[in-house]
Amino acid sequence: METGRSPEIRKDAIHNRWVIFSPARARRPSDFKSKSDSNSNSKTQTECPFCADHEHECAPEIFRFPPESTSDWQIRVIQNLYPALSRELEPSNNQCGGGPVTVTGFGFHDVVIESPAHPIHLTDLSPVQVAEVLLAYKKRIDQLRAFDSIKYVQVFKNHGASAGASLSHSHSQIMALPVVPPTAAARIQSMKEYFGQTGKCGLCQARQDDLFVDGSIHFISIVPFAATFPFEIWIVPRDHSSHFHELDNDKALDLGGLLKLMLVKMSLQLNNPPYNFMIHTAPLQIDSTQLPFTHWFIQIVPQLTVVGGFELGTGCYINPVIPEDAAKVLREVSIP
Amino acid sequence: METGRSPEIRKDAIHNRWVIFSPARARRPSDFKSKSDSNSNSKTQTECPFCADHEHECAPEIFRFPPESTSDWQIRVIQNLYPALSRELEPSNNQCGGGPVTVTGFGFHDVVIESPAHPIHLTDLSPVQVAEVLLAYKKRIDQLRAFDSIKYVQVFKNHGASAGASLSHSHSQIMALPVVPPTAAARIQSMKEYFGQTGKCGLCQARQDDLFVDGSIHFISIVPFAATFPFEIWIVPRDHSSHFHELDNDKALDLGGLLKLMLVKMSLQLNNPPYNFMIHTAPLQIDSTQLPFTHWFIQIVPQLTVVGGFELGTGCYINPVIPEDAAKVLREVSIP
Ligand SMILES: Nc1ncnc2c1ncn2[C@@H]1O[C@H](COP(=O)(O)OP(=O)(O)O[C@H]2O[C@H](CO)[C@@H](O)[C@H](O)[C@H]2O)[C@@H](O)[C@H]1O
Ligand SMILES: Nc1ncnc2c1ncn2[C@@H]1O[C@H](COP(=O)(O)OP(=O)(O)O[C@H]2O[C@H](CO)[C@@H](O)[C@H](O)[C@H]2O)[C@@H](O)[C@H]1O
Repeated sequence: METGRSPEIRKDAIHNRWVIFSPARARRPSDFKSKSDSNSNSKTQTECPFCADHEHECAPEIFRFPPESTSDWQIRVIQNLYPALSRELEPSNNQCGGGPVTVTGFGFHDVVIESPAHPIHLTDLSPVQVAEVLLAYKKRIDQLRAFDSIKYVQVFKNHGASAGASLSHSHSQIMALPVVPPTAAARIQSMKEYFGQTGKCGLCQARQDDLFVDGSIHFISIVPFAATFPFEIWIVPRDHSSHFHELDNDKALDLGGLLKLMLVKMSLQLNNPPYNFMIHTAPLQIDSTQLPFTHWFIQIVPQLTVVGGFELGTGCYINPVIPEDAAKVLREVSIP
Repeated sequence: METGRSPEIRKDAIHNRWVIFSPARARRPSDFKSKSDSNSNSKTQTECPFCADHEHECAPEIFRFPPESTSDWQIRVIQNLYPALSRELEPSNNQCGGGPVTVTGFGFHDVVIESPAHPIHLTDLSPVQVAEVLLAYKKRIDQLRAFDSIKYVQVFKNHGASAGASLSHSHSQIMALPVVPPTAAARIQSMKEYFGQTGKCGLCQARQDDLFVDGSIHFISIVPFAATFPFEIWIVPRDHSSHFHELDNDKALDLGGLLKLMLVKMSLQLNNPPYNFMIHTAPLQIDSTQLPFTHWFIQIVPQLTVVGGFELGTGCYINPVIPEDAAKVLREVSIP
């Protein structure tokens, strides 16, 4: 199989959506086995490239925290060794037209190592340490948004093999894209319509008591009214804010506490499930008319069910848990 | 947790998409364990409700094949005992507007048992027997499209735990929906645009040699140009045809052979992976102006990678295998 090719982004003209083709990804550890093997792949501590003292096995570092630290670093932001998009390509303009459409796979793909120690998970960190991880995302986004050709930055975390993680050492990823991806485009369109109808931001309004899980000074956590997945949680800034990178130190600390609390509650209530979280923010280059209806939030999804042919076929999801019931269960978890 | 509630369909106003809430689904066997346990759930032959002589453990039968058979049936189409949608509810009209939107979960959810014998998979059936399964889908769709309030019928198959299957006995499912689901709506829109630009049907055009896998008299199988998943295969009618239910006996037999061949090739080349297939057809109530750009096909997706936070967050997929490479590999599999 050819793997020396550069990544490219192709348009599926049947469904009008983009797919990233990245042969380099095929080489990364633990890919291309049937899913059923996927639990057998976690590296042991001695061979993990993300552990302290293995820095030389990683792709180049972008920065670390604390900045001046040597072997005592707490967080490292590094390049992904098997990037889905390449920072070395010339960005190409989106093309339109009837035939097969391909654009070059320009973009950035980074990894955030959240701790130097292999057994430490995000839930083991203190709120201050979780805040430092959030501020590392912000710092990297601030660097990436300096590029005109970057339209969107997606921060996400995979925890556990069936949430997609190929490495078990606690980490998250940052991808900077040359296009606004479908979910972000649909969200901005939908929020715009809601704003047009009501004069209000849909996420400023999402505060029903029966969907409330918990709150901090600056954030609330809820189960969304039409949650796609069972026990899905959203953490939403109380004050209207379009971009995650507006987060300041105070809010980061506050959010660090609430994010940790949600992950701990989920882990206790749902038997330490694999999970993903995604930071949903506004496209980088929105104009001032779009600010009133864009509102960033974090979506946390425990992986409890498997997507089947119905969801793949229709794009419509079946959730067996009524959101009000999920919110009640999560509200009532008591932390020992 | 409350499970006596009727299913409902809620609109996520943030992303403008519908989610089906179905508390009854939570009771079905093998749900609600972490995914990592999901391999331990396959029932043994003696307790499987889909086996011959266990008919009384199933929800009511709709029809069987051969129609007059008794204990020697080959295929049974039955109601799903834990339906995501309920045929007993009043269909409600789609509502619009700014606030939380809910419609009742009216619809049909059926199971097609593809063989009376537990160890038999679709690949073990003869082309004629696979054709009978396809004709059972067609017969049930013909019954379902008599209901004005049914807008779309999704046929799909889950094979293997990590493709979502909760029961291992070979079966597929048919869901009749009161709405046109997002994928079908996006497809019709995108095909319409392509038709507007080129005067041609996008799927009649999808015949590149380097994406070709195999062909029969009436069908071709290809890897799509912008395949979402590695080794994804589409089986497309050579002649333009909007609806799967136009399939006649001749074409069913021809398709039975090609579908079987593709599943066998996939199984040999990719080490018997879990997989899904979905029949993508046109919405039931399209008008004659939409016929020229709607073209049904079958999508087969081996489950080789796990969806992670990037895909969940952006709706954009990363495929490590270039479609031309996948097509070559599949073309060259030799059947012993
Ligand atoms: N020595 C090294 N230095 C630097 N980086 C290294 C490295 N060794 C490995 N890496 C990178 O580290 C990352 C670890 O990421 P994760 O475990 O979160 O999942 P991964 O990206 O593999 O795929 C999951 O997430 C993606 C995106 O959601 C899905 O496409 C995919 O199917 C799913 O399995 C990989 O991207 C890998 O390329
Ligand atoms: N005695 C009986 N009589 C009649 N029917 C019976 C029965 N016992 C069980 N059933 C039904 O048989 C079906 C078996 O279906 P599958 O194994 O293909 O996956 P399931 O629908 O459980 O969920 C997968 O597919 C769906 C749809 O894609 C996803 O939502 C989900 O997450 C994924 O696990 C179930 O729907 C179940 O309700």
